[in-house]
Amino acid sequence: MASIIDGKKISEDMLDGLKSSIQKLKDEFNLTPGLAVVIVGDDPASHTYVNMKEKKCNEVGMYSEVHRLPESISELELLKIIEELNYNDKVHGILVQLPLPEHINEYTVNEHISFEKDVDGFHPVNIGNLQLNRPSFVPCTPKGIIELIKSTGTTIEGKNAVVLGRSNIVGLPTAMLLLNENATVTICHSRTKNLKETTLKADIIVCATGVHGVLTEDMIKEGVIIVDAGIIKLGDKMVGDVNFDDVMHKTSFITPVPGGVGPMTIAMLMKNTYEAALKCV
Amino acid sequence: MASIIDGKKISEDMLDGLKSSIQKLKDEFNLTPGLAVVIVGDDPASHTYVNMKEKKCNEVGMYSEVHRLPESISELELLKIIEELNYNDKVHGILVQLPLPEHINEYTVNEHISFEKDVDGFHPVNIGNLQLNRPSFVPCTPKGIIELIKSTGTTIEGKNAVVLGRSNIVGLPTAMLLLNENATVTICHSRTKNLKETTLKADIIVCATGVHGVLTEDMIKEGVIIVDAGIIKLGDKMVGDVNFDDVMHKTSFITPVPGGVGPMTIAMLMKNTYEAALKCV
Repeated sequence: MASIIDGKKISEDMLDGLKSSIQKLKDEFNLTPGLAVVIVGDDPASHTYVNMKEKKCNEVGMYSEVHRLPESISELELLKIIEELNYNDKVHGILVQLPLPEHINEYTVNEHISFEKDVDGFHPVNIGNLQLNRPSFVPCTPKGIIELIKSTGTTIEGKNAVVLGRSNIVGLPTAMLLLNENATVTICHSRTKNLKETTLKADIIVCATGVHGVLTEDMIKEGVIIVDAGIIKLGDKMVGDVNFDDVMHKTSFITPVPGGVGPMTIAMLMKNTYEAALKCV
Repeated sequence: MASIIDGKKISEDMLDGLKSSIQKLKDEFNLTPGLAVVIVGDDPASHTYVNMKEKKCNEVGMYSEVHRLPESISELELLKIIEELNYNDKVHGILVQLPLPEHINEYTVNEHISFEKDVDGFHPVNIGNLQLNRPSFVPCTPKGIIELIKSTGTTIEGKNAVVLGRSNIVGLPTAMLLLNENATVTICHSRTKNLKETTLKADIIVCATGVHGVLTEDMIKEGVIIVDAGIIKLGDKMVGDVNFDDVMHKTSFITPVPGGVGPMTIAMLMKNTYEAALKCV
Protein backbone atom coordinates (compact mmCIF):
# COMPACT_ATOMS: atom_id res chain seq x y z
CA MET A 1 0.00 0.00 0.00
CA ALA A 2 1.32 3.38 -1.00
CA SER A 3 2.25 6.10 1.41
CA ILE A 4 1.31 9.59 0.38
CA ILE A 5 4.15 12.08 0.55
CA ASP A 6 2.62 15.03 2.31
CA GLY A 7 4.31 18.02 0.70
CA LYS A 8 2.13 20.43 2.62
CA LYS A 9 3.20 19.06 6.00
CA ILE A 10 6.87 18.73 5.02
CA SER A 11 6.96 22.29 3.70
CA GLU A 12 5.26 23.65 6.82
CA ASP A 13 7.78 21.94 9.09
CA MET A 14 10.58 23.34 6.96
CA LEU A 15 9.14 26.85 7.09
CA ASP A 16 8.79 26.62 10.88
CA GLY A 17 12.47 25.82 11.12
CA LEU A 18 13.30 28.58 8.69
CA LYS A 19 11.30 31.09 10.73
CA SER A 20 13.47 30.38 13.76
CA SER A 21 16.64 30.64 11.70
CA ILE A 22 15.54 33.99 10.29
CA GLN A 23 14.76 35.25 13.79
CA LYS A 24 18.29 34.27 14.83
CA LEU A 25 19.75 36.13 11.87
CA LYS A 26 17.83 39.23 12.93
CA ASP A 27 18.81 38.94 16.58
CA GLU A 28 22.45 38.10 16.12
CA PHE A 29 23.38 40.02 12.97
CA ASN A 30 20.58 42.57 12.61
CA LEU A 31 20.01 41.13 9.15
CA THR A 32 16.59 40.53 7.61
CA PRO A 33 16.53 38.39 4.47
CA GLY A 34 14.75 40.21 1.67
CA LEU A 35 13.08 39.02 -1.51
CA ALA A 36 12.15 41.22 -4.46
CA VAL A 37 9.54 39.86 -6.80
CA VAL A 38 9.03 41.42 -10.21
CA ILE A 39 5.87 40.78 -12.16
CA VAL A 40 5.02 42.13 -15.59
CA GLY A 41 1.47 42.29 -16.96
CA ASP A 42 -1.93 41.22 -15.69
CA ASP A 43 -1.99 37.41 -15.84
CA PRO A 44 -4.28 36.49 -12.91
CA ALA A 45 -2.52 33.17 -12.16
CA SER A 46 0.86 34.92 -12.00
CA HIS A 47 -0.54 37.55 -9.64
CA THR A 48 -1.92 34.81 -7.41
CA TYR A 49 1.50 33.16 -7.25
CA VAL A 50 3.19 36.47 -6.48
CA ASN A 51 0.71 37.25 -3.72
CA MET A 52 1.35 33.83 -2.19
CA LYS A 53 5.09 34.48 -2.21
CA GLU A 54 4.63 37.88 -0.59
CA LYS A 55 2.41 36.37 2.08
CA LYS A 56 4.89 33.57 2.77
CA CYS A 57 7.71 36.11 3.20
CA ASN A 58 5.64 37.86 5.86
CA GLU A 59 4.90 34.59 7.62
CA VAL A 60 8.53 33.61 7.99
CA GLY A 61 9.63 37.13 8.92
CA MET A 62 11.37 38.12 5.70
CA TYR A 63 11.31 41.50 4.05
CA SER A 64 9.63 41.55 0.64
CA GLU A 65 8.92 44.03 -2.07
CA VAL A 66 6.80 43.43 -5.16
CA HIS A 67 7.29 45.38 -8.35
CA ARG A 68 4.07 45.19 -10.35
CA LEU A 69 4.93 46.46 -13.82
CA PRO A 70 2.69 47.14 -16.83
CA GLU A 71 2.60 44.74 -19.78
CA SER A 72 3.91 47.63 -21.93
CA ILE A 73 7.24 48.01 -20.10
CA SER A 74 10.25 47.72 -22.40
CA GLU A 75 12.93 45.10 -21.88
CA LEU A 76 15.47 47.84 -21.21
CA GLU A 77 13.33 49.42 -18.50
CA LEU A 78 12.85 46.04 -16.87
CA LEU A 79 16.61 45.43 -16.95
CA LYS A 80 17.17 48.80 -15.27
CA ILE A 81 14.85 47.83 -12.43
CA ILE A 82 16.68 44.52 -12.06
CA GLU A 83 20.01 46.33 -12.02
CA GLU A 84 18.77 48.55 -9.18
CA LEU A 85 17.69 45.47 -7.27
CA ASN A 86 21.10 43.90 -7.88
CA TYR A 87 22.59 46.84 -5.92
CA ASN A 88 19.85 47.09 -3.30
CA ASP A 89 21.24 45.93 0.05
CA LYS A 90 17.82 45.12 1.47
CA VAL A 91 17.24 42.62 -1.31
CA HIS A 92 19.06 39.27 -1.13
CA GLY A 93 16.95 37.40 -3.62
CA ILE A 94 15.38 38.53 -6.91
CA LEU A 95 12.66 36.62 -8.69
CA VAL A 96 11.06 37.60 -11.98
CA GLN A 97 7.70 35.89 -12.30
CA LEU A 98 7.34 33.93 -15.53
CA PRO A 99 5.97 33.96 -18.17
CA LEU A 100 7.06 37.36 -19.49
CA PRO A 101 5.36 39.20 -22.35
CA GLU A 102 6.60 38.18 -25.80
CA HIS A 103 8.59 41.35 -26.42
CA ILE A 104 10.83 40.60 -23.42
CA ASN A 105 13.51 37.91 -23.71
CA GLU A 106 13.39 35.60 -20.71
CA TYR A 107 17.02 34.52 -21.06
CA THR A 108 18.25 38.12 -21.20
CA VAL A 109 16.33 38.90 -18.04
CA ASN A 110 17.62 35.86 -16.15
CA GLU A 111 21.16 36.64 -17.25
CA HIS A 112 20.91 40.18 -15.83
CA ILE A 113 19.90 39.08 -12.36
CA SER A 114 23.06 38.96 -10.25
CA PHE A 115 23.84 35.27 -9.97
CA GLU A 116 24.36 35.86 -6.25
CA LYS A 117 20.73 36.96 -5.90
CA ASP A 118 19.35 34.46 -8.39
CA VAL A 119 17.13 32.54 -5.94
CA ASP A 120 15.28 30.91 -8.84
CA GLY A 121 18.54 29.34 -10.06
CA PHE A 122 17.91 30.25 -13.70
CA HIS A 123 21.15 32.20 -14.34
CA PRO A 124 23.54 30.27 -16.64
CA VAL A 125 26.27 30.42 -13.97
CA ASN A 126 24.01 28.71 -11.45
CA ILE A 127 22.92 26.12 -14.02
CA GLY A 128 26.57 25.45 -14.87
CA ASN A 129 27.56 25.18 -11.21
CA LEU A 130 24.73 22.76 -10.49
CA GLN A 131 25.99 20.54 -13.32
CA LEU A 132 29.50 20.82 -11.89
CA ASN A 133 28.05 19.75 -8.51
CA ARG A 134 29.32 22.95 -6.96
CA PRO A 135 27.58 25.39 -4.60
CA SER A 136 24.83 27.17 -6.53
CA PHE A 137 21.27 28.36 -6.26
CA VAL A 138 19.17 25.36 -7.18
CA PRO A 139 15.80 25.96 -8.90
CA CYS A 140 13.04 25.75 -6.28
CA THR A 141 10.82 23.00 -7.70
CA PRO A 142 13.68 20.51 -8.31
CA LYS A 143 15.13 21.30 -4.89
CA GLY A 144 11.72 20.55 -3.37
CA ILE A 145 11.39 17.34 -5.36
CA ILE A 146 14.65 15.99 -3.94
CA GLU A 147 13.52 16.87 -0.41
CA LEU A 148 10.28 14.97 -0.99
CA ILE A 149 12.16 11.89 -2.21
CA LYS A 150 14.52 12.07 0.75
CA SER A 151 11.57 12.40 3.14
CA THR A 152 10.62 8.82 2.27
CA GLY A 153 13.85 7.58 3.78
CA THR A 154 14.88 5.93 0.53
CA THR A 155 18.51 5.90 -0.57
CA ILE A 156 18.79 7.64 -3.93
CA GLU A 157 22.31 6.37 -4.64
CA GLY A 158 22.39 3.55 -7.17
CA LYS A 159 18.67 3.79 -7.93
CA ASN A 160 17.28 3.99 -11.44
CA ALA A 161 15.70 7.42 -11.61
CA VAL A 162 13.67 8.45 -14.63
CA VAL A 163 12.74 12.07 -15.27
CA LEU A 164 9.88 12.72 -17.66
CA GLY A 165 10.31 16.16 -19.19
CA ARG A 166 13.42 18.18 -19.80
CA SER A 167 12.42 21.77 -19.05
CA ASN A 168 15.07 24.14 -17.76
CA ILE A 169 12.88 24.90 -14.76
CA VAL A 170 12.03 21.39 -13.57
CA GLY A 171 13.14 18.38 -15.63
CA LEU A 172 16.79 19.10 -16.36
CA PRO A 173 17.81 20.50 -12.96
CA THR A 174 15.99 17.60 -11.26
CA ALA A 175 18.01 15.18 -13.40
CA MET A 176 21.23 16.94 -12.36
CA LEU A 177 20.28 16.80 -8.67
CA LEU A 178 19.46 13.09 -8.88
CA LEU A 179 22.80 12.53 -10.59
CA ASN A 180 24.57 14.45 -7.85
CA GLU A 181 22.85 12.06 -5.41
CA ASN A 182 24.44 9.20 -7.41
CA ALA A 183 21.31 7.84 -9.06
CA THR A 184 21.50 6.39 -12.55
CA VAL A 185 19.45 8.96 -14.42
CA THR A 186 17.42 8.68 -17.62
CA ILE A 187 15.89 11.78 -19.17
CA CYS A 188 12.78 11.13 -21.28
CA HIS A 189 10.78 13.65 -23.30
CA SER A 190 8.32 14.06 -26.13
CA ARG A 191 10.67 12.42 -28.66
CA THR A 192 11.27 9.36 -26.48
CA LYS A 193 10.19 6.10 -28.06
CA ASN A 194 9.01 3.11 -25.99
CA LEU A 195 8.68 5.20 -22.84
CA LYS A 196 7.13 2.25 -21.03
CA GLU A 197 10.26 0.15 -21.49
CA THR A 198 12.22 2.79 -19.57
CA THR A 199 9.68 3.62 -16.87
CA LEU A 200 9.14 -0.07 -16.06
CA LYS A 201 12.78 -0.23 -14.86
CA ALA A 202 12.52 2.87 -12.70
CA ASP A 203 12.80 2.91 -8.92
CA ILE A 204 12.03 6.63 -8.85
CA ILE A 205 9.99 8.55 -11.42
CA VAL A 206 9.71 12.32 -11.51
CA CYS A 207 6.95 13.56 -13.79
CA ALA A 208 7.31 17.08 -15.12
CA THR A 209 5.62 17.10 -18.50
CA GLY A 210 2.40 18.99 -17.91
CA VAL A 211 0.58 16.23 -19.81
CA HIS A 212 -2.08 14.48 -17.77
CA GLY A 213 -2.01 10.71 -18.25
CA VAL A 214 1.57 10.54 -19.56
CA LEU A 215 2.30 7.75 -17.07
CA THR A 216 -0.20 4.97 -16.42
CA GLU A 217 -0.45 1.94 -14.16
CA ASP A 218 0.90 -0.50 -16.76
CA MET A 219 4.08 1.58 -17.17
CA ILE A 220 5.39 1.28 -13.62
CA LYS A 221 6.76 -1.50 -11.47
CA GLU A 222 5.60 -2.42 -7.97
CA GLY A 223 7.12 -0.26 -5.28
CA VAL A 224 8.17 2.68 -7.41
CA ILE A 225 8.35 6.18 -5.91
CA ILE A 226 6.49 8.78 -7.96
CA VAL A 227 6.90 12.53 -7.60
CA ASP A 228 4.44 14.43 -9.73
CA ALA A 229 5.37 18.02 -10.57
CA GLY A 230 2.56 18.45 -13.09
CA ILE A 231 -0.14 21.02 -12.39
CA ILE A 232 -2.88 20.77 -14.97
CA LYS A 233 -6.36 22.26 -14.81
CA LEU A 234 -8.88 19.53 -15.59
CA GLY A 235 -12.40 20.91 -15.51
CA ASP A 236 -12.59 22.67 -12.15
CA LYS A 237 -9.88 20.70 -10.39
CA MET A 238 -6.08 20.55 -10.51
CA VAL A 239 -4.44 17.28 -11.45
CA GLY A 240 -0.89 16.11 -12.05
CA ASP A 241 0.83 14.20 -14.84
CA VAL A 242 -0.35 10.90 -13.40
CA ASN A 243 -3.80 9.71 -12.52
CA PHE A 244 -3.19 9.37 -8.80
CA ASP A 245 -6.03 6.95 -8.03
CA ASP A 246 -5.02 4.55 -10.80
CA VAL A 247 -1.33 4.25 -10.02
CA MET A 248 -1.06 4.69 -6.28
CA HIS A 249 -1.69 1.05 -5.33
CA LYS A 250 1.48 0.01 -7.18
CA THR A 251 3.72 2.71 -5.69
CA SER A 252 5.56 2.69 -2.39
CA PHE A 253 5.37 6.48 -2.14
CA ILE A 254 3.59 9.07 -4.22
CA THR A 255 2.96 12.81 -4.08
CA PRO A 256 -0.58 14.13 -4.45
CA VAL A 257 -1.59 17.06 -6.67
CA PRO A 258 -2.25 19.50 -5.12
CA GLY A 259 -0.37 19.24 -1.82
CA GLY A 260 2.80 17.57 -3.10
CA VAL A 261 5.42 19.45 -5.06
CA GLY A 262 3.58 22.79 -5.11
CA PRO A 263 3.99 23.78 -1.45
CA MET A 264 7.64 22.70 -1.53
CA THR A 265 8.46 25.10 -4.37
CA ILE A 266 7.51 28.16 -2.38
CA ALA A 267 9.24 26.82 0.75
CA MET A 268 12.45 26.34 -1.25
CA LEU A 269 12.19 29.90 -2.53
CA MET A 270 12.14 31.08 1.07
CA LYS A 271 15.08 28.81 1.87
CA ASN A 272 17.11 30.06 -1.11
CA THR A 273 16.47 33.66 -0.09
CA TYR A 274 17.52 32.91 3.48
CA GLU A 275 20.70 31.27 2.18
CA ALA A 276 21.40 34.28 -0.04
CA ALA A 277 21.14 36.53 3.02
CA LEU A 278 23.34 34.19 5.04
CA LYS A 279 26.18 34.84 2.60
CA CYS A 280 26.08 38.53 3.60
CA VAL A 281 26.83 37.77 7.25
CA MET B 1 29.60 -6.51 -39.88
CA ALA B 2 30.73 -3.38 -38.10
CA SER B 3 31.98 -0.30 -39.85
CA ILE B 4 34.87 1.42 -38.22
CA ILE B 5 34.35 5.15 -37.69
CA ASP B 6 37.58 6.65 -38.94
CA GLY B 7 38.11 9.63 -36.65
CA LYS B 8 41.47 10.35 -38.20
CA LYS B 9 40.04 10.71 -41.70
CA ILE B 10 36.97 12.66 -40.53
CA SER B 11 39.10 15.08 -38.52
CA GLU B 12 41.52 15.58 -41.42
CA ASP B 13 38.68 16.42 -43.80
CA MET B 14 37.31 18.85 -41.24
CA LEU B 15 40.68 20.49 -40.76
CA ASP B 16 41.10 20.85 -44.53
CA GLY B 17 37.80 22.71 -44.68
CA LEU B 18 38.80 24.79 -41.69
CA LYS B 19 42.09 25.73 -43.31
CA SER B 20 40.22 27.21 -46.26
CA SER B 21 37.83 29.07 -43.97
CA ILE B 22 40.74 30.53 -42.02
CA GLN B 23 42.41 31.65 -45.23
CA LYS B 24 39.20 33.44 -46.20
CA LEU B 25 39.07 35.15 -42.82
CA LYS B 26 42.61 36.38 -43.37
CA ASP B 27 41.97 37.53 -46.94
CA GLU B 28 38.64 39.19 -46.38
CA PHE B 29 38.96 40.58 -42.87
CA ASN B 30 42.68 40.56 -42.20
CA LEU B 31 41.92 38.45 -39.16
CA THR B 32 44.00 35.49 -38.02
CA PRO B 33 42.39 33.25 -35.37
CA GLY B 34 44.71 32.87 -32.40
CA LEU B 35 44.96 30.28 -29.64
CA ALA B 36 46.85 30.72 -26.39
CA VAL B 37 47.77 27.55 -24.56
CA VAL B 38 48.91 27.69 -20.96
CA ILE B 39 50.73 24.77 -19.42
CA VAL B 40 51.99 24.53 -15.84
CA GLY B 41 54.66 22.08 -14.73
CA ASP B 42 56.66 19.33 -16.43
CA ASP B 43 54.21 16.48 -17.06
CA PRO B 44 55.56 14.88 -20.26
CA ALA B 45 52.13 13.73 -21.54
CA SER B 46 50.74 17.25 -21.10
CA HIS B 47 53.68 18.73 -22.98
CA THR B 48 53.12 16.26 -25.81
CA TYR B 49 49.46 17.31 -26.05
CA VAL B 50 50.39 20.99 -26.02
CA ASN B 51 53.00 20.50 -28.74
CA MET B 52 50.39 18.72 -30.86
CA LYS B 53 47.98 21.62 -30.44
CA GLU B 54 50.67 24.14 -31.37
CA LYS B 55 51.57 22.12 -34.47
CA LYS B 56 47.94 21.81 -35.51
CA CYS B 57 47.49 25.59 -35.21
CA ASN B 58 50.40 26.05 -37.62
CA GLU B 59 48.98 23.52 -40.05
CA VAL B 60 45.60 25.24 -40.33
CA GLY B 61 47.13 28.71 -40.46
CA MET B 62 46.22 29.92 -36.98
CA TYR B 63 48.33 32.05 -34.69
CA SER B 64 49.36 30.32 -31.49
CA GLU B 65 51.32 31.13 -28.38
CA VAL B 66 52.28 28.71 -25.65
CA HIS B 67 52.94 29.84 -22.10
CA ARG B 68 55.09 27.20 -20.42
CA LEU B 69 55.00 28.00 -16.72
CA PRO B 70 56.90 26.45 -13.83
CA GLU B 71 55.18 24.05 -11.39
CA SER B 72 55.91 26.59 -8.65
CA ILE B 73 53.79 29.40 -10.10
CA SER B 74 51.14 30.68 -7.70
CA GLU B 75 47.46 30.62 -8.53
CA LEU B 76 47.38 34.41 -8.46
CA GLU B 77 50.23 34.71 -10.95
CA LEU B 78 48.51 32.24 -13.25
CA LEU B 79 45.28 34.22 -13.01
CA LYS B 80 47.17 37.39 -13.95
CA ILE B 81 48.50 35.73 -17.10
CA ILE B 82 44.99 34.58 -17.99
CA GLU B 83 43.67 38.08 -17.41
CA GLU B 84 46.27 39.46 -19.83
CA LEU B 85 45.21 36.87 -22.40
CA ASN B 86 41.58 37.84 -21.87
CA TYR B 87 42.51 41.34 -23.07
CA ASN B 88 44.94 40.26 -25.79
CA ASP B 89 43.38 40.98 -29.20
CA LYS B 90 45.56 38.43 -31.00
CA VAL B 91 44.16 35.67 -28.83
CA HIS B 92 40.62 34.44 -29.53
CA GLY B 93 40.81 31.19 -27.63
CA ILE B 94 42.47 30.35 -24.30
CA LEU B 95 43.17 26.83 -23.13
CA VAL B 96 44.74 25.87 -19.84
CA GLN B 97 46.14 22.35 -20.12
CA LEU B 98 44.92 20.05 -17.37
CA PRO B 99 45.75 18.68 -14.90
CA LEU B 100 47.05 21.60 -12.84
CA PRO B 101 49.31 21.27 -9.79
CA GLU B 102 47.46 20.66 -6.54
CA HIS B 103 47.96 24.17 -5.17
CA ILE B 104 46.01 25.64 -8.08
CA ASN B 105 42.22 25.37 -8.15
CA GLU B 106 41.04 24.17 -11.54
CA TYR B 107 37.57 25.68 -11.15
CA THR B 108 38.96 29.09 -10.21
CA VAL B 109 41.17 29.05 -13.28
CA ASN B 110 38.35 28.04 -15.64
CA GLU B 111 36.10 30.68 -14.14
CA HIS B 112 38.68 33.39 -14.84
CA ILE B 113 39.00 32.63 -18.53
CA SER B 114 36.69 35.01 -20.39
CA PHE B 115 33.72 32.86 -21.35
CA GLU B 116 33.98 34.38 -24.82
CA LYS B 117 37.48 32.88 -25.21
CA ASP B 118 36.72 29.65 -23.38
CA VAL B 119 37.33 27.29 -26.32
CA ASP B 120 37.45 24.32 -23.95
CA GLY B 121 33.88 25.05 -22.82
CA PHE B 122 34.68 24.60 -19.13
CA HIS B 123 33.44 27.99 -17.88
CA PRO B 124 30.20 27.67 -15.84
CA VAL B 125 28.44 30.09 -18.21
CA ASN B 126 29.23 27.87 -21.18
CA ILE B 127 28.18 24.76 -19.27
CA GLY B 128 24.93 26.46 -18.31
CA ASN B 129 24.27 27.63 -21.86
CA LEU B 130 24.89 24.16 -23.25
CA GLN B 131 22.30 22.79 -20.84
CA LEU B 132 19.92 25.56 -21.92
CA ASN B 133 20.58 24.50 -25.54
CA ARG B 134 21.81 27.98 -26.32
CA PRO B 135 24.90 29.10 -28.27
CA SER B 136 27.98 28.24 -26.24
CA PHE B 137 31.48 26.85 -26.53
CA VAL B 138 31.05 23.11 -26.37
CA PRO B 139 33.86 21.02 -24.83
CA CYS B 140 35.99 19.59 -27.63
CA THR B 141 35.77 15.86 -26.96
CA PRO B 142 31.95 15.77 -26.65
CA LYS B 143 31.63 17.96 -29.73
CA GLY B 144 33.84 15.51 -31.61
CA ILE B 145 31.84 12.54 -30.33
CA ILE B 146 28.59 13.95 -31.75
CA GLU B 147 30.29 14.57 -35.11
CA LEU B 148 31.47 10.95 -35.16
CA ILE B 149 27.97 9.66 -34.44
CA LYS B 150 26.51 11.92 -37.14
CA SER B 151 29.14 10.72 -39.61
CA THR B 152 27.48 7.29 -39.54
CA GLY B 153 24.33 8.79 -41.04
CA THR B 154 22.24 7.61 -38.10
CA THR B 155 19.40 9.74 -36.78
CA ILE B 156 20.06 10.52 -33.12
CA GLU B 157 16.52 11.73 -32.40
CA GLY B 158 14.44 9.20 -30.49
CA LYS B 159 17.36 6.82 -29.99
CA ASN B 160 18.28 5.35 -26.62
CA ALA B 161 21.69 6.82 -25.88
CA VAL B 162 23.67 5.65 -22.88
CA VAL B 163 26.67 7.57 -21.60
CA LEU B 164 29.08 5.71 -19.34
CA GLY B 165 30.88 8.20 -17.13
CA ARG B 166 29.78 11.61 -15.90
CA SER B 167 32.91 13.72 -15.98
CA ASN B 168 32.55 17.45 -16.58
CA ILE B 169 34.93 17.18 -19.51
CA VAL B 170 33.38 14.30 -21.45
CA GLY B 171 30.43 12.39 -19.97
CA LEU B 172 28.09 15.15 -18.84
CA PRO B 173 28.48 17.51 -21.80
CA THR B 174 28.10 14.54 -24.17
CA ALA B 175 24.84 13.65 -22.41
CA MET B 176 23.63 17.24 -22.84
CA LEU B 177 24.52 17.27 -26.54
CA LEU B 178 22.72 13.96 -27.13
CA LEU B 179 19.70 15.37 -25.33
CA ASN B 180 19.81 18.49 -27.50
CA GLU B 181 19.73 16.10 -30.48
CA ASN B 182 16.52 14.64 -28.98
CA ALA B 183 17.91 11.28 -27.87
CA THR B 184 16.56 9.64 -24.74
CA VAL B 185 19.64 9.82 -22.55
CA THR B 186 20.75 7.66 -19.63
CA ILE B 187 23.81 8.64 -17.62
CA CYS B 188 25.59 5.72 -15.92
CA HIS B 189 28.57 5.86 -13.60
CA SER B 190 30.50 4.02 -10.93
CA ARG B 191 27.48 3.83 -8.60
CA THR B 192 25.19 2.40 -11.28
CA LYS B 193 23.77 -1.02 -10.48
CA ASN B 194 22.88 -3.56 -13.19
CA LEU B 195 24.72 -1.61 -15.86
CA LYS B 196 24.11 -4.42 -18.34
CA GLU B 197 20.33 -4.02 -18.08
CA THR B 198 20.72 -0.43 -19.29
CA THR B 199 23.38 -0.92 -21.94
CA LEU B 200 21.43 -3.82 -23.52
CA LYS B 201 18.68 -1.35 -24.45
CA ALA B 202 21.05 1.20 -25.96
CA ASP B 203 21.14 2.15 -29.63
CA ILE B 204 24.14 4.41 -29.02
CA ILE B 205 26.74 3.97 -26.27
CA VAL B 206 29.39 6.54 -25.45
CA CYS B 207 32.12 5.21 -23.16
CA ALA B 208 34.04 7.77 -21.13
CA THR B 209 35.08 6.00 -17.96
CA GLY B 210 38.79 5.41 -18.41
CA VAL B 211 38.23 1.84 -17.22
CA HIS B 212 39.25 -0.78 -19.77
CA GLY B 213 36.72 -3.60 -20.05
CA VAL B 214 33.81 -1.66 -18.54
CA LEU B 215 31.62 -2.72 -21.48
CA THR B 216 31.77 -6.27 -22.84
CA GLU B 217 30.15 -8.18 -25.67
CA ASP B 218 27.35 -9.63 -23.53
CA MET B 219 26.27 -6.12 -22.48
CA ILE B 220 25.33 -4.78 -25.91
CA LYS B 221 22.66 -5.49 -28.46
CA GLU B 222 23.20 -6.24 -32.15
CA GLY B 223 23.66 -3.13 -34.25
CA VAL B 224 24.62 -0.71 -31.49
CA ILE B 225 26.87 2.27 -32.25
CA ILE B 226 29.80 2.56 -29.86
CA VAL B 227 31.95 5.65 -29.44
CA ASP B 228 34.88 5.02 -27.15
CA ALA B 229 36.44 8.08 -25.53
CA GLY B 230 38.68 6.09 -23.20
CA ILE B 231 42.45 6.36 -23.57
CA ILE B 232 44.16 3.89 -21.29
CA LYS B 233 47.77 2.74 -21.42
CA LEU B 234 47.85 -1.06 -21.36
CA GLY B 235 51.43 -2.30 -21.45
CA ASP B 236 52.96 -0.48 -24.38
CA LYS B 237 49.75 0.21 -26.29
CA MET B 238 46.78 2.52 -25.94
CA VAL B 239 43.33 1.00 -25.53
CA GLY B 240 39.85 2.34 -24.93
CA ASP B 241 37.09 1.51 -22.48
CA VAL B 242 35.93 -1.42 -24.63
CA ASN B 243 37.83 -4.35 -25.97
CA PHE B 244 37.43 -3.45 -29.63
CA ASP B 245 38.08 -6.93 -31.07
CA ASP B 246 35.54 -8.59 -28.76
CA VAL B 247 32.61 -6.25 -29.31
CA MET B 248 32.99 -5.02 -32.87
CA HIS B 249 31.16 -7.91 -34.56
CA LYS B 250 27.95 -6.96 -32.74
CA THR B 251 28.12 -3.24 -33.48
CA SER B 252 26.97 -1.40 -36.59
CA PHE B 253 29.59 1.29 -36.09
CA ILE B 254 32.47 1.61 -33.67
CA THR B 255 35.38 3.98 -33.11
CA PRO B 256 38.88 2.58 -32.74
CA VAL B 257 41.38 3.65 -30.06
CA PRO B 258 43.58 5.30 -31.14
CA GLY B 259 42.25 6.98 -34.26
CA GLY B 260 38.66 7.57 -33.13
CA VAL B 261 37.75 10.26 -30.63
CA GLY B 262 41.32 11.50 -30.07
CA PRO B 263 41.93 13.22 -33.42
CA MET B 264 38.46 14.79 -33.28
CA THR B 265 39.18 16.51 -29.97
CA ILE B 266 42.03 18.54 -31.37
CA ALA B 267 40.09 19.29 -34.58
CA MET B 268 37.21 20.64 -32.49
CA LEU B 269 39.62 22.83 -30.54
CA MET B 270 40.71 24.37 -33.82
CA LYS B 271 37.08 24.78 -34.85
CA ASN B 272 36.11 26.42 -31.54
CA THR B 273 39.03 28.85 -31.86
CA TYR B 274 38.02 29.69 -35.42
CA GLU B 275 34.44 30.30 -34.25
CA ALA B 276 35.70 32.52 -31.43
CA ALA B 277 37.59 34.60 -33.99
CA LEU B 278 34.56 34.72 -36.28
CA LYS B 279 32.66 36.56 -33.54
CA CYS B 280 35.21 39.39 -33.79
CA VAL B 281 34.40 40.04 -37.46
